[in-house]
Amino acid sequence: MSRPELADLTAARTRLAGVARVTPVLTSGTLGSLSGRTVSLKAENLQLTGSFKIRGAYNTIVQLSEDERRHGVVTASAGNHGQAVAWAAREAGIGATIFVPAAAPMAKVEAARSYGANVVLGGEGFDDAVAAALAHVESTGATFVHAFDNPRVVAGQGTVGLELAEQLPPGPGTVVIPVGGGGLAGGIAIGLRALRPELSLVGVQAAACAPYAGLAPTGPTIADGIAIKVPAELTKAILRDLLDEIVVVEDEAISQAIVLLLERSKLVVEGAGAASVAALLGGLVPGQGPVCAVLAGGNIDATTLVSVTRYGLTSSGRYLVVRIVIPDRPGQLARILAVVGGEHANVLNVTHYREGRSIGVLETEAEVTMETRGEEHSQHVVEVLEAFGFTVQRLR
Amino acid sequence: MSRPELADLTAARTRLAGVARVTPVLTSGTLGSLSGRTVSLKAENLQLTGSFKIRGAYNTIVQLSEDERRHGVVTASAGNHGQAVAWAAREAGIGATIFVPAAAPMAKVEAARSYGANVVLGGEGFDDAVAAALAHVESTGATFVHAFDNPRVVAGQGTVGLELAEQLPPGPGTVVIPVGGGGLAGGIAIGLRALRPELSLVGVQAAACAPYAGLAPTGPTIADGIAIKVPAELTKAILRDLLDEIVVVEDEAISQAIVLLLERSKLVVEGAGAASVAALLGGLVPGQGPVCAVLAGGNIDATTLVSVTRYGLTSSGRYLVVRIVIPDRPGQLARILAVVGGEHANVLNVTHYREGRSIGVLETEAEVTMETRGEEHSQHVVEVLEAFGFTVQRLR
Repeated sequence: MSRPELADLTAARTRLAGVARVTPVLTSGTLGSLSGRTVSLKAENLQLTGSFKIRGAYNTIVQLSEDERRHGVVTASAGNHGQAVAWAAREAGIGATIFVPAAAPMAKVEAARSYGANVVLGGEGFDDAVAAALAHVESTGATFVHAFDNPRVVAGQGTVGLELAEQLPPGPGTVVIPVGGGGLAGGIAIGLRALRPELSLVGVQAAACAPYAGLAPTGPTIADGIAIKVPAELTKAILRDLLDEIVVVEDEAISQAIVLLLERSKLVVEGAGAASVAALLGGLVPGQGPVCAVLAGGNIDATTLVSVTRYGLTSSGRYLVVRIVIPDRPGQLARILAVVGGEHANVLNVTHYREGRSIGVLETEAEVTMETRGEEHSQHVVEVLEAFGFTVQRLR
Repeated sequence: MSRPELADLTAARTRLAGVARVTPVLTSGTLGSLSGRTVSLKAENLQLTGSFKIRGAYNTIVQLSEDERRHGVVTASAGNHGQAVAWAAREAGIGATIFVPAAAPMAKVEAARSYGANVVLGGEGFDDAVAAALAHVESTGATFVHAFDNPRVVAGQGTVGLELAEQLPPGPGTVVIPVGGGGLAGGIAIGLRALRPELSLVGVQAAACAPYAGLAPTGPTIADGIAIKVPAELTKAILRDLLDEIVVVEDEAISQAIVLLLERSKLVVEGAGAASVAALLGGLVPGQGPVCAVLAGGNIDATTLVSVTRYGLTSSGRYLVVRIVIPDRPGQLARILAVVGGEHANVLNVTHYREGRSIGVLETEAEVTMETRGEEHSQHVVEVLEAFGFTVQRLR
């Protein structure tokens, strides 16, 4: 397939005008302080359907012939691309069928359905969904819309780069882009290399699945949106030629980036979308100048968001869990809670054990989970409990 | 105090240019479908410091005399106004002291500190903080910056209205604005009545604290940012003259709005900020035309966000909790979990009871908490468990 050029991107931008949103670039003082650089965020998580994917999907679907339109489009995707194809097909007024693995995140399935697509759940993994989609192509003549191995898709994603070329202040700087299949990073690179050659371009993959960085996949990642095991020749060549570097980030760093963006930037960003910020905070972005982190998408399941946030709060010391062995006589638990309340820690859960632990027959054990102001406050609460004569074991 | 006029708002806008962010107006297809109207969101939660409050605070502080600047500013606030004064004082290069109740949300305290303010924690309630702030004024000569009872503050908040006048498409429509002290709603109303008289203006208060709607306060609300018990004469008169209506919303509706904005719009919005969307979804916004809901702020404590999201997921059937009485012999719990896993429900917690319940001596009881695709899937999981011979009591 031929590599898209700047003219293909500008044509895509014309098609997308009034269809996709021109997403804002927001400066972040918090990320600036933490990284020691001027930081801005390209908030593509605020794109319609919650990710950049509609740009490529719409640019592809709207160019179909009358005959192709009649037969509809099909894809296999448990995620953003499936939603994007569903949405773009509705905008273009044609039918779409999306095959997704049975265990797909529920929010994404419901979202694709809400855009009017025929969503078919089935099979254990992604390969089953692809097989079902290809069988659907065979039997119906529908057009398969690939998530990244398609010049029209890459050109559509490249419109993010055209916007950045105008939105970023003049002069050097670095743009950090999450890399899954490479459609977004490839498209942005085509645009920015042509219009803003002074900018450095850094791609980011999740360590657990980073074929572009030459690593073998090791398992699932919270950045499921960029967990693409097999790159395409098209995008692989673009990234090789146009990116300055590809770095990898661990899930732990991605989780912290998600929580930081949630708390300080008021943005919901999925793991794949927050990988760019994780790379920045991990010191993996070379140079000293301004950095723009592309937040590729915001489609994180609310249940996952809850888990990640709880985890983030715990690792920053804002959940305190202590185990306290106390004499088994009335009023001891009340005394502990009074001490905790006096220190303005917020009790979330109390478990009172009287058996099954290695404690004396006249002793009992309480496990108290609290919300605190942070690590310093947590340490203070433990010290005050000890000052009141309790033996405290801190669990986290 | 004199009521600000359009000229005061435009002067404030000049002062704020390059200081505050011009926040985006984002259309929302999801809210459009749910309400049957064209819906846009003024994302003031993306404002610097996470709320509109810096507009008024900065417009006030930057107009202080050289003598006033030397003595610094002070306020009493556990929330957005405190952060805004801290931030605006830093921008203006002067000192700020913020008095906050000891039990204030930790994220807000830390944020105000991060902007360089002297944050003084103490006292049980807001009244104690105000008393301490006034004592500080007496002893130091600092200027007290009120959150809303100040024409310069109202004029600053009114710059949101000037932006809306340009950002909203021509023609009639309704702007829905959260009302606490009334500075934001009053300021916006002054701007839009002058520039866009065809627009209807609706204020929203939380039912638990709605003095502008003539209701006596009944207790705490998740919309703590608009829980102002005593209105000011200045803003009261503006709202009376310029708003078409003031409606009230319950915390339940506000919580649902928070979760919806999080999941579908990828925006973190606090209770006070989401009140406008709650009013819209509750059918409380008169008329049929387009609606713009002002999202006043995004400063919700991450721990609160976790609680609200869990609550929202539970009420939409996405957390399923069942209690199952089973014969106390090995392998029964494993059998239950195998059934649940086969239906692609995600087990979050299992509690196994053998005592303390009204169950037979040879029976045991398991309480299983699962994440499901939604209410339909929850019902299906219960039915499958029953088909396997288990007696299932659904707890929620």
